Formats: sequence, structure tokens, C-alpha cells
Amino acid sequence: MTSSAIREILKITQRPEVISFAGGLPAPELFPLAEIREATEKVYADHGPAALQYSTTEGHLPLRTWIADRGGLAPDQVQITSGSQQGLDLLGRVLIDPGDVMLVESPTYLGALQAFAPYRPRFVEVITDDDGVVPEALEDQLRTTPAKLIYLVPTFQNPTGRTLSVERRRQLLEITKRHGVTILEDGPYNELRFRGERVPTLFELALADGTPVDDLNVIMLGTFSKVLAPGLRDAWVQGPRPVIDKLVMAKQAADLHSPTLNQLIVTELLDDVLPRQIKIISAEYGKRAAVMINSIAENFPPGVACTDPDGGMFCWVQLPTDAGIDTEPMLAAAVDRNVAYVPGRPFFASGIGHNTMRLSYVTSTEQEIRAGIEALGAVIEDQLVGRAQLR
Amino acid sequence: MTSSAIREILKITQRPEVISFAGGLPAPELFPLAEIREATEKVYADHGPAALQYSTTEGHLPLRTWIADRGGLAPDQVQITSGSQQGLDLLGRVLIDPGDVMLVESPTYLGALQAFAPYRPRFVEVITDDDGVVPEALEDQLRTTPAKLIYLVPTFQNPTGRTLSVERRRQLLEITKRHGVTILEDGPYNELRFRGERVPTLFELALADGTPVDDLNVIMLGTFSKVLAPGLRDAWVQGPRPVIDKLVMAKQAADLHSPTLNQLIVTELLDDVLPRQIKIISAEYGKRAAVMINSIAENFPPGVACTDPDGGMFCWVQLPTDAGIDTEPMLAAAVDRNVAYVPGRPFFASGIGHNTMRLSYVTSTEQEIRAGIEALGAVIEDQLVGRAQLR
Repeated sequence: MTSSAIREILKITQRPEVISFAGGLPAPELFPLAEIREATEKVYADHGPAALQYSTTEGHLPLRTWIADRGGLAPDQVQITSGSQQGLDLLGRVLIDPGDVMLVESPTYLGALQAFAPYRPRFVEVITDDDGVVPEALEDQLRTTPAKLIYLVPTFQNPTGRTLSVERRRQLLEITKRHGVTILEDGPYNELRFRGERVPTLFELALADGTPVDDLNVIMLGTFSKVLAPGLRDAWVQGPRPVIDKLVMAKQAADLHSPTLNQLIVTELLDDVLPRQIKIISAEYGKRAAVMINSIAENFPPGVACTDPDGGMFCWVQLPTDAGIDTEPMLAAAVDRNVAYVPGRPFFASGIGHNTMRLSYVTSTEQEIRAGIEALGAVIEDQLVGRAQLR
Repeated sequence: MTSSAIREILKITQRPEVISFAGGLPAPELFPLAEIREATEKVYADHGPAALQYSTTEGHLPLRTWIADRGGLAPDQVQITSGSQQGLDLLGRVLIDPGDVMLVESPTYLGALQAFAPYRPRFVEVITDDDGVVPEALEDQLRTTPAKLIYLVPTFQNPTGRTLSVERRRQLLEITKRHGVTILEDGPYNELRFRGERVPTLFELALADGTPVDDLNVIMLGTFSKVLAPGLRDAWVQGPRPVIDKLVMAKQAADLHSPTLNQLIVTELLDDVLPRQIKIISAEYGKRAAVMINSIAENFPPGVACTDPDGGMFCWVQLPTDAGIDTEPMLAAAVDRNVAYVPGRPFFASGIGHNTMRLSYVTSTEQEIRAGIEALGAVIEDQLVGRAQLR
């Protein structure tokens, strides 16, 4: 099944009767619409035509300064991008030479694979478990396969919802430093924790021992898409100046600069609206996650495993490997029952994962989640019975 | 002199006492600020959170439909981009393989050279005169140097302000078709005519003989940056479906989609504000161009040539080739006299053009233009006298 075939099926899920767990869309009813309207009016009133004029490639200085201050950086260690997707693309452009080994989690964020692929790295999957990348396995792999880069979503990962433990973060930093591997830490969901204690980012941990930012082997991507609104396309990359300098040149060639208006709007929202939104969104996503996890426990057949995330937007379902079910053709059966998901295979660089799927719990109501998971449970049950009868 | 050295000098031109003809910035006092504010409010009121949600990679359908209708196309022959710069980048991505010959005007738009360079084409300059590319020269060149692409700004060119004549447009279409060359027609200034009759685009001429859009050898880039406001970053590429389909994939990897809000705002402005703005901007730019051209005639030493554009934002100055003046080091002398320009060399793929410079007449008042040109005339005079004494 091709990715365009999946896209065609997923188009059907836009029918109102289909309960879709497929999208990665933040809940629109939680967007701070009134506050963004007000901020927009203020931007026009305060900045006048400058809000609509060309601006610098690096990005709006007050916005970069806020990001920098929060992370113990200087503003010229921050590059504003049009969504984190552009950050991934530009990092691929300046860091990857064809054939470079790039380590990725198994599974990893499929949009990152798409962003990096044009620069033709050799993707190598790193073994993971419920706590994320397994450090011992990484160490073993690096001994035989020297790598230039490792791409990680360590917190509330897309697609699994898993979080790399603090202990493992320290180990990963130590191992990658020793082997000369640069970490690309993608953190779009970092703030969306609804359970447990905050875990420091790899970037924060790397800075904590006093290493200057310019000497770090960690580059971090952050975004306002999941905590304010994705349609503004405001995100950033933070890291050592030599990397940021190259990103500035790449960004200038790619699209000159991100829209002026959008950066000014986000800047207005940083101090008051953003922290409030983070609380509102996290709490609501936590409720929806609990409903989904509980419904899965009640409705899915025995032998089906699901992650139990502490934050973020996704959980990850694994059907019994010996049952022979492929979630790609199963999607058509699910859509027939008015429920949708994303098949897991495209999240694996190696093309495995036919028995997996990603579910988002954030764009459906609690009632829809219950109904959708019940329907999906029945679809899986049918497949298991069907497969068993074939034997 | 490196491009970063030039950038450093141009930073000085942000001092208020410096009259800068260097920028390519549309006049901000002509932006339809009130109308854009009103349109923004309407977008929030009509679309609610959808104005801030993820949207499709192809771009907002009503916007693509409007562009398509105007050009006799279908909406799926239009891809929305974040500025024309992104259109150039994405076209480079999907059309250029390393070593492909890409023909460019001599001089050409330097941002296009920057956009295409990462894809490593072999740039070959085409001979031009006051009417643009010389067809006979192009024919000769193609006989010995088969090319894949030709990049053209045929109307009110950046940097020269020149317009390719209708007769030559027809000849170019015929020649490129015969030699299997695809034309990338960049038209950011097309609507900004202040003198003479409208000239059809290459794209329009190619369609006129009944060729289906999907069979054209012309791809066109258009933008709202110069006719509404550049800070919104709304532009497009139109052309055959096979190319647009590839652009959609490339855009998805590069930044998922252009900001939803910005596309909705521009869509609101298409029917009333846009045609009014085109009239207002063209008329005002025409006045400023006339003041600059007249001041140059009065103040520049004999032997200095300048183009006399019928529209757009730029004119192009050539100092006597035998005078040995280099406009790059001369820029420091100009900035000392509080006037600035862009040295011409970066606009040549071959690195010639030391005796040339680009002047923009759109971001200065008539009074500033007179004072700035007088100062620049004195700088050139000084250089000529200095050079003559050295002999």
C-alpha cells in the first residue's frame, strides 16, 4: 500500500460520520482565538505597515530573545522557522551529506523521515523500548556503524507517546558525545505533560555541566504549533552559532524569512496567554487520553498492546505479531465502521511495523473516543477471527 | 568583496540619514493597512479556529481557484508558496539535477541564483540587450550548449527594469520549445506598469495557441508581495500538473503548508483591494521613477548609462567600462556621503559587472531621490576623476 493510497483513505475520514484518530491536529476548540484576535489588532496598531513589510531572515528579535532567555542562550543561537517541519528540512540541508548515517528511533516521526530523505542520509533504526532508545543497544550500534546524527523525539514521542527517562538522557548524551554524534532533539510536545514530573530536555541536560552552547552536540527544535495554534507556522531551532549561521543562509535561499505578522502575533502572546494555554491544553488532553486508554483496555482483544503516555497527543497500538494482521489494508475495514487511524509502517525507516497503528486522542470528544475505540476494537476482533479461521 | 561584506555595509544604510536605493522593499506607506486589518477581522469572524488550524499543502482552495480562473487554469495547476523565493527553491528541488545547464539572463535576479545554487546547476548566461534576451544569441547558444531550463524575469526585470518585447517572447517560446527547454517565468512586478501597453506573459502567449496547460514548457511564478504586502509571504507557482504534483510533495517535506491565516487574509482582498492597490502603487512608482531618471540625467557624469523602465521597482546603472571603477569598493564612499545602492556583480552568474549597480526608486520620497542621486553623482564623479589622475 502506497502512502498516497493511505492519503486517499484518510481523505474519506473527513466525512463527518467518521471518528478519526488519524490526524495530528491540536484541538481547535482550545485555540485562544479571542486572545489571538486581540493580539493581532494590537500588532497592527503598534507596528503599522512594518507588520506587513519584509523582515530579517533570522526572525523577529524580541521573539528570538524570549526563546533565548528561557533556554540560557543568546538570540543569535536561535533561528525562527515556518513550523518545525521547516527546521527539519533546513537542518537536513546544512547537516546531511548523501550517505551520512542518521540514527532514528524505531518507530520515528514520519514527517522527519520525509524532511531528511531528499538529502539522502542512510537511516539506521535504533532499538527502543517503553523508555525510549536503549542506551546499551545504541552503544553497540555505534561501535559497528559510526553515525553523524541521531534524530530523537524524546518527550511524548510521535508516534508512540513514549518519554525517554532522565537516566537514559544522561547516558545518551555521554555516548553520543564520545562517538561524535550530533543529536537533533525535536520537542513539539514538551510542554503538554498531564501526568508525572517534568523531565529536562537533552539540550538542558547538555548545558547543565557548563558546556558553552556553541560547543554542544545537541540542536533542539521547538514550536508554538501545539501550544498556541499551528496555522500561524511559528517555530524555531536553537543550537550552536556555527549551525544557526548556516541555517540563516539556508533559510534565506529557501523563503527569505517567516511571515512578519505571524511572528509579531506570537510575540504578544508569550507572557500571559502561552502559560495559560499550556495548562488548559494539557489538562484537557490528559482527560481524553485517560478515556482512550481505558476504552482500549475494555474493548480491544487480549494480546493487543497500547502505550500509556504521560503527555502529548498520541498513543501507539501493537497487534499480536503472530496474528498476521496488516493495519494498512485493515484501515479500509475501519473506515467502513466509521473510525480511522494511521497505519504504523510509514513511521519505520526500515518499513517494518505492519502490526502497528497510531491513535490521536486530542481531536475527538470523550464520547467520540468511546464510540470510536469500541468500533475499532470490533474491527480488530473481526481480523483476528478471520485470520484464525484461515489457519 | 564578499557578499557578507556588502551586507555589512548595507546594514549601515539603516541609519536614518542614509538615503538608500539599495533595498527591494515595496513602499510601506502604500500598503493597504486599513483594508488588511479589516480583512483580518473578517477572517477571524468567518472562519474562527479554522483560520489558525493546519491546512492543506496545496494551499487554500478559493485562493488557488481565483489564481487559476484568472489564468485559464484548474486549481490543481496552482501551488501556493511562502513568497516566490520558496517557489524558486521548490522548483530547483524538483527540476534541477546536479550539472544540469540552467540559462539565466545577464544580469539576473540574485535571489534566484541563491535559490537554485544548492541544487548545483551549471549556470550559463544568455546575452541580453535593452529588450531583454537576444533570441538569435539564445538559438546559437542552445546549438552548442543544450540546456534543461531557462530562468527569466521578462517584465520590469530585477535588477535592470527591462522588459522583453512581445516579438521576442514569441521567438523565445518557439526556440525553447524546439530545443526542449523549460522556461521558469518569474513575474513579481508584472502588474506594476506605469507606462506603455501591457505585454502578455510568456505563460499567456504559450497558452494562446491552444496548447493544454499540462503540455506547456512554461512554469510561472506570481506573488502578492509587491501588490499587497510582502510580510504576509503569499505567492504561487502555476504550471503543468506533473510539475505541480511534484511541488506539492516537495512543499510537504519543506514546511507542510503556508500559514492558513495569511492565505485567508489575501483571499479577502482579491476582488476589491487588489485592483485598487495596483493602480495606486503603479502611479506612485511611476512618479518616483521619473524623478530618479531625470535626476540621473542631470547629475551623473557623461558616459554613465541608465535603463528607463516602464514599470517595476528598479533601474540599472552602468559606468563606463573603460573607467576601471568597481562599484563594490565605491559603495563605502557612497555610504560616506549618505547614499546607498546594490553593487551589480552579484546579479551576474559569471561574476562580471563590476561597473554596474541597481537602484530602487520605490522606498524614497521624491525629495530624497533628488538629494540621493545628486550625492551619488558626486561620488561617481570623484571616482572618475581619481581614476583619470592615476593614468
